[in-house]
Amino acid sequence: MKRVAESTIRRLSLYLTALEEIGARGTRTVSSEELAQLGGTTSAQVRKDLSVFGSFGKRGLGYSVAELTARLRSILGLGRRWRVCIIGAGKVGAALAQYPGFPERGFDIVAVYDTDPARIGERWGDLKVRDAASLEADSSALNCDIAVLAVPASAAQRMAERAVAAGVRAILNFVPVQLSVPRNVAVRNVNMAVELEALSFALTNRG
Amino acid sequence: MKRVAESTIRRLSLYLTALEEIGARGTRTVSSEELAQLGGTTSAQVRKDLSVFGSFGKRGLGYSVAELTARLRSILGLGRRWRVCIIGAGKVGAALAQYPGFPERGFDIVAVYDTDPARIGERWGDLKVRDAASLEADSSALNCDIAVLAVPASAAQRMAERAVAAGVRAILNFVPVQLSVPRNVAVRNVNMAVELEALSFALTNRG
Repeated sequence: MKRVAESTIRRLSLYLTALEEIGARGTRTVSSEELAQLGGTTSAQVRKDLSVFGSFGKRGLGYSVAELTARLRSILGLGRRWRVCIIGAGKVGAALAQYPGFPERGFDIVAVYDTDPARIGERWGDLKVRDAASLEADSSALNCDIAVLAVPASAAQRMAERAVAAGVRAILNFVPVQLSVPRNVAVRNVNMAVELEALSFALTNRG
Repeated sequence: MKRVAESTIRRLSLYLTALEEIGARGTRTVSSEELAQLGGTTSAQVRKDLSVFGSFGKRGLGYSVAELTARLRSILGLGRRWRVCIIGAGKVGAALAQYPGFPERGFDIVAVYDTDPARIGERWGDLKVRDAASLEADSSALNCDIAVLAVPASAAQRMAERAVAAGVRAILNFVPVQLSVPRNVAVRNVNMAVELEALSFALTNRG
């Protein structure tokens, strides 16, 4: 598959959220105009985004909600389940472990790690907090695809490297640190500082 | 001030994070090349971004870390404190109330709201969970600048409208819903589904 821009993937994800809402209301077809409105873009952009992945919809009839939902889920890799470990059993890690969006999107939390002896062994629902020292040793049994990183900033780069050594190929990074990882490892950053500063900028400079 | 692109603000925020780290190590000056590396961009982009806000640095000497940090904090509206209310006292709200990045960046949590009688009155550190029914009535006393939205999807739009009616001018939205608000209200979305799907896409389509 040719290289797809991050902004395209982002919009596909928004179209999917919109389609799932439309489908839940029992609606069977949707126009590119409607999808554009729900995804916050233009109908030309919707058609362009979808054309990258082949032909969808019938001229004048719009898209089948069920068919387009299934195709987008498949394009986005949601047709299977992924194995996720959370590294960092502090407050952010605990909140993420409870996040219903993970299992809903096919992300199964299979392990939680920490380095703090006070946390290791703690029961988190069906899981028990594991010693981060066993990250690499656990890898063949746990076989994690994705690591969710929620550790102190000073530990982030080293933990990312260890997760990669343990076979992880994607990282969801909640630490405000620019991680350096091999090219074949995907990283997404959730940087709260950036979001907060965009708001304070807007409040400061509003008309 | 002329309109500044969201992507520019995002990079200014990353430069600031980098500068604060550099400053904490005791370094006094920084080149645009170093800032570019830390912010994940090019030195030409750094110079272009900063030139929007006036002249910084001396040719050949680089930027003063202290001066540039202060200017960026001022540009980003971090020279003052903001009053924040969290709407939704569930797990996401609880995690956010504990997030140290809020007070560090000048965001003071002054109230938490919920509609669930089982949660109203609960003690959260110095705060008590308030009845969301009093959102508008509280506004003159609490004077919130920013609402953090962490409610169920079905309640998000209505709560956003009520927050705006109560005088809020910026919303940090954790609900995977496209909010519709007046033009003068700034909204930032933290959409976990988008991040997760970007990772599953990358894992599915990697070479």
